[in-house]
Amino acid sequence: MATVGNEKNVVFVVIDVHKAVLKNAWHADEVISNISRALEKARSAGIPVLWVKHSSDEMPKESDGWQLVDGLSPLEGERIIHKRNESSFEDTDFAEALAEHDCGHIVISGAATNWCVRATAYGALDRGYDITLVSDAHSTKNIELPDGKVIDAGGIITDLNIVMSHLSYPGRKTGTVTSTDLDFEKVAG
Amino acid sequence: MATVGNEKNVVFVVIDVHKAVLKNAWHADEVISNISRALEKARSAGIPVLWVKHSSDEMPKESDGWQLVDGLSPLEGERIIHKRNESSFEDTDFAEALAEHDCGHIVISGAATNWCVRATAYGALDRGYDITLVSDAHSTKNIELPDGKVIDAGGIITDLNIVMSHLSYPGRKTGTVTSTDLDFEKVAG
Repeated sequence: MATVGNEKNVVFVVIDVHKAVLKNAWHADEVISNISRALEKARSAGIPVLWVKHSSDEMPKESDGWQLVDGLSPLEGERIIHKRNESSFEDTDFAEALAEHDCGHIVISGAATNWCVRATAYGALDRGYDITLVSDAHSTKNIELPDGKVIDAGGIITDLNIVMSHLSYPGRKTGTVTSTDLDFEKVAG
Repeated sequence: MATVGNEKNVVFVVIDVHKAVLKNAWHADEVISNISRALEKARSAGIPVLWVKHSSDEMPKESDGWQLVDGLSPLEGERIIHKRNESSFEDTDFAEALAEHDCGHIVISGAATNWCVRATAYGALDRGYDITLVSDAHSTKNIELPDGKVIDAGGIITDLNIVMSHLSYPGRKTGTVTSTDLDFEKVAG
């Protein structure tokens, strides 16, 4: 599968694990620990790791909120992609970095589920990549509406997991896996 | 804006308003009436209308559930796009139909919000189109989880409206408008 790159070449992506993004996010500590588990598996399996970092007027580079959460940090040699839009592909060298690995399959984790994770996941599918979303390794915050109602972050996360498990894109694979079940040898299998 | 087509050329798209898709969907009658309102405005303004129809093993062409809901039907000359995947762009002549109008801006309505509407909206942005989502003219169903919990369809719809109001894609416009406020003269303005 995959209509771009080599489907056997997998890259693990960690999106926007900034302090400000994960503060008060749904089950943040657990999700960070799940990202960490997936990250260790990627490193052990020799899978390239790409870190996507967001900055904006509200969260400028080097600000406190822009710092990555404790426990997650790039090793030397792990490339960092800086973005200012939601999709990691927009105005960045993300596609270029993937191409350097002849990547056809992106394993996705990070935040926020309904913003940068979602835009990046569809962006990947629209560009021809296979994707696997690590179902317990992404998170977002509740949406508080003006009328006082709240859209539950857990529902937003589960919705994306269900949808990404079932979407069909000709010539591409979509799927989800928990960080515990994630096996990089089998992802592209 | 728009990095494909002419941003001034708007097309109105009605996605998957099949009986089976809208049966028991969130506020279906109201949403159908809002789609109808938007459709009438498109026709009055001379905006091309494209109808996207889905078929699958579960909802084969010509089956009862595949029929369009009462009150919404194409006029002669309004093109119909048949698809079997969620994104209207996949394995269809949708992009070709848009190109015939040199379209740079797609106004989106229909169902289901988190399946074909969402995949089409991101698919459009990823391909360079400006989009406007008609915020009260798309719907989906509650997701019932194995543990008995329910993800509220209303939350899924509001989430997509909020996200599509705020996403930034360089060189493209995203936004939402109600069917009442929709003015095709101003959409591309």
